[in-house]
Amino acid sequence: MPTSEAGSIRSAVSSDESGIPTGECHPRLARWTKSIRKSSLQEMLLTATRPGTVSFALGLPAPELFPAAALAKAAVDVLGHDPSALQYAPSLASLKRHIVEIMSMRGVACREAQIFLTAGAQQGMSLLARLLLNPGDKVIAEELIYTGFQQAIEPAEPCVLTVPTDRLTGMDVDAVELLLSSGERPAFIYSITDGHNPVGVSMSLDKRVRLVELARRYEVPIMEDDAYGFLSYDSAPLPPLRGIDPRWVLYIGSFSKILAPNLRIGWLIVPESLMDNLSIVKEGSDIDTATFSQRTVAAYLEGGHLPGHLRTLRAEYARRRAEMISALQEHFPPGIRWSVPSSGVFIWVNLGSGVDTSKLLKVALEKEKIAFIPGRAFEVRENHHAANCLRLNFSNCPASQITDGIMRLARLVKAEMA
Amino acid sequence: MPTSEAGSIRSAVSSDESGIPTGECHPRLARWTKSIRKSSLQEMLLTATRPGTVSFALGLPAPELFPAAALAKAAVDVLGHDPSALQYAPSLASLKRHIVEIMSMRGVACREAQIFLTAGAQQGMSLLARLLLNPGDKVIAEELIYTGFQQAIEPAEPCVLTVPTDRLTGMDVDAVELLLSSGERPAFIYSITDGHNPVGVSMSLDKRVRLVELARRYEVPIMEDDAYGFLSYDSAPLPPLRGIDPRWVLYIGSFSKILAPNLRIGWLIVPESLMDNLSIVKEGSDIDTATFSQRTVAAYLEGGHLPGHLRTLRAEYARRRAEMISALQEHFPPGIRWSVPSSGVFIWVNLGSGVDTSKLLKVALEKEKIAFIPGRAFEVRENHHAANCLRLNFSNCPASQITDGIMRLARLVKAEMA
Repeated sequence: MPTSEAGSIRSAVSSDESGIPTGECHPRLARWTKSIRKSSLQEMLLTATRPGTVSFALGLPAPELFPAAALAKAAVDVLGHDPSALQYAPSLASLKRHIVEIMSMRGVACREAQIFLTAGAQQGMSLLARLLLNPGDKVIAEELIYTGFQQAIEPAEPCVLTVPTDRLTGMDVDAVELLLSSGERPAFIYSITDGHNPVGVSMSLDKRVRLVELARRYEVPIMEDDAYGFLSYDSAPLPPLRGIDPRWVLYIGSFSKILAPNLRIGWLIVPESLMDNLSIVKEGSDIDTATFSQRTVAAYLEGGHLPGHLRTLRAEYARRRAEMISALQEHFPPGIRWSVPSSGVFIWVNLGSGVDTSKLLKVALEKEKIAFIPGRAFEVRENHHAANCLRLNFSNCPASQITDGIMRLARLVKAEMA
Repeated sequence: MPTSEAGSIRSAVSSDESGIPTGECHPRLARWTKSIRKSSLQEMLLTATRPGTVSFALGLPAPELFPAAALAKAAVDVLGHDPSALQYAPSLASLKRHIVEIMSMRGVACREAQIFLTAGAQQGMSLLARLLLNPGDKVIAEELIYTGFQQAIEPAEPCVLTVPTDRLTGMDVDAVELLLSSGERPAFIYSITDGHNPVGVSMSLDKRVRLVELARRYEVPIMEDDAYGFLSYDSAPLPPLRGIDPRWVLYIGSFSKILAPNLRIGWLIVPESLMDNLSIVKEGSDIDTATFSQRTVAAYLEGGHLPGHLRTLRAEYARRRAEMISALQEHFPPGIRWSVPSSGVFIWVNLGSGVDTSKLLKVALEKEKIAFIPGRAFEVRENHHAANCLRLNFSNCPASQITDGIMRLARLVKAEMA
């Protein structure tokens, strides 16, 4: 205790056995918190890390593929040469230059001045939502969508206008057009164009072209979440929306899936006219993105390691995808459908109307120590179809465990359907 | 370009000479953005880093005192032993344990379960604001206050009920009582109890006791921003509000000023009942706090370096404070008043009614390459007194440059007053 006065003051406060005061306050919370649904993702993160559990649950990259040694070397170089790597600082220009190059590999031409650095894609989404959304505003999104997107917009209590997702061609762009032509002017349209989370689909080229045309015609921006786009397994991946027509596309990129999640570095590509306002929103949120991480990533990229690393990731994840698809074909009962993703890390499985995947998860964790995410976790609002679906991740699990895990899951599925 | 189709699509889009498409969109922004004031802090950050400028502007710690070598060693240990340091992960329990110990040095008893890790104090503030503030809600704050606090609450367009600050004893608690007893029930009261930014004052003990009593009586939480509290220069520092009565105090702590800003690690101490909702808000904002940074800080703390490092910081900053105070006494014209802070990194100077410090800054940067922050930057709303004041930082500038810088500033002040 710094002062005896404070000691005597504190002794007057009720305390539990440990001497720590009890009687915590229950402050009045903002109204939007009433709509909070407990996050399945955080719960899964805890369950799925229990020893012995085979987890197909979260969208985690493979930790054994992180270039830890090269990053450690980069970190030491950064700290050894420049203690100001630990100081507050403006965003690193050299990292933006590298991102311009990386984006050209993805078919997107952009300038440094259009790049805004963030603490990962989730923050990019959250900052854009703060900038674009008034309380109660409308947004267009698919019926089943990344839960983190829902969390990013929830504080504004928006009205989400949903459109279906086709399992082969992605977002229903006819439905988007119907909304816009009937007069709806949402704050933005949310799109995961490649490696859709959770459905695993990549949007067809003609839909991409039509979607950016609609955005332009109706002057509604598209928030394009490209967290998975660099993980493509086909020989000729399509460019993201931003690569087709940049004018109304606000692009969200990230190093989380292509380098390592917990450097927490991502980026936005947006009109220069948004930069000042974005800086204010960012400063109010967390001042700036960890300079140490920025410099470490820039030093790693400077070494020219990324293209080779991406080849390694794509080859290994393609192997795991193939392993999972074969296991599904071999062990799952006939009549069950799943997606074969050309990008990303997810396979979406529809077990048909007989099986409730939320209940299945409970059994799977208890009986077989298998984790996945039940479809309902991704519903914007109740969706009967989602209850029979589940999302499987294939990037986080070594190929050797995938077949065994799918076999055990298949056993439970058969029992449920029997 | 990944596909030739996309190439032909893009060629149809207008582009500038560099081949990059022009015609950027101007999406409709959320209404609150209309009230955005351009941040003096970000602008200063750019100006103040120009070579040759002596900067008393920002609240930056001294980079030459960062324990860069020990942190580099910690980072390498972390990456060498465990690649999952780069993976998504729940908050690190061992770091929370260290924070419990650190807080006991500050006179605060708490449990691990009450600690929530953040990407620095600013994020702590922003997350709490999201959790507590409805659009248009009221909050109580002082008339002159940290600009980052204003940015954190701005998206909710709150009504800020202001109370004065006494230059010697801090926040006017009578004024707080008047507001509460007249029926106001703000979402929270914001307090920088020690080393106030920008005024440099630490609240007197009797005011601390009265403020927590008011919070309890009226059931209004206090958001206590303790970014500077560990940097105390007196033999018997007072405990923060949370150390006096924890019940209605939501405490915000940070490693930014006591270790290094750009690891971006801070913490909240809050009731356990808020943890689930805070996790949701955090997840929606940026998923989680960089595990790599968390582990690096934990490894550094494990080495037992912090108490010695804090002694070094306090001794050096006390020396710089003394240097600045002597220089002000020696070179500034008589009649000018300034604070002598017992904590923190700021001295608040009142030049009297003749001098507009916003104009002075322009001259100071041009003629003498001296940077400071003019008082008006901290106004919640127009405040004629603030126009004559300025904030000086003494932590970032080597002692050897302080006297010279103050001498040059004094020359300009005398010229302005002549």
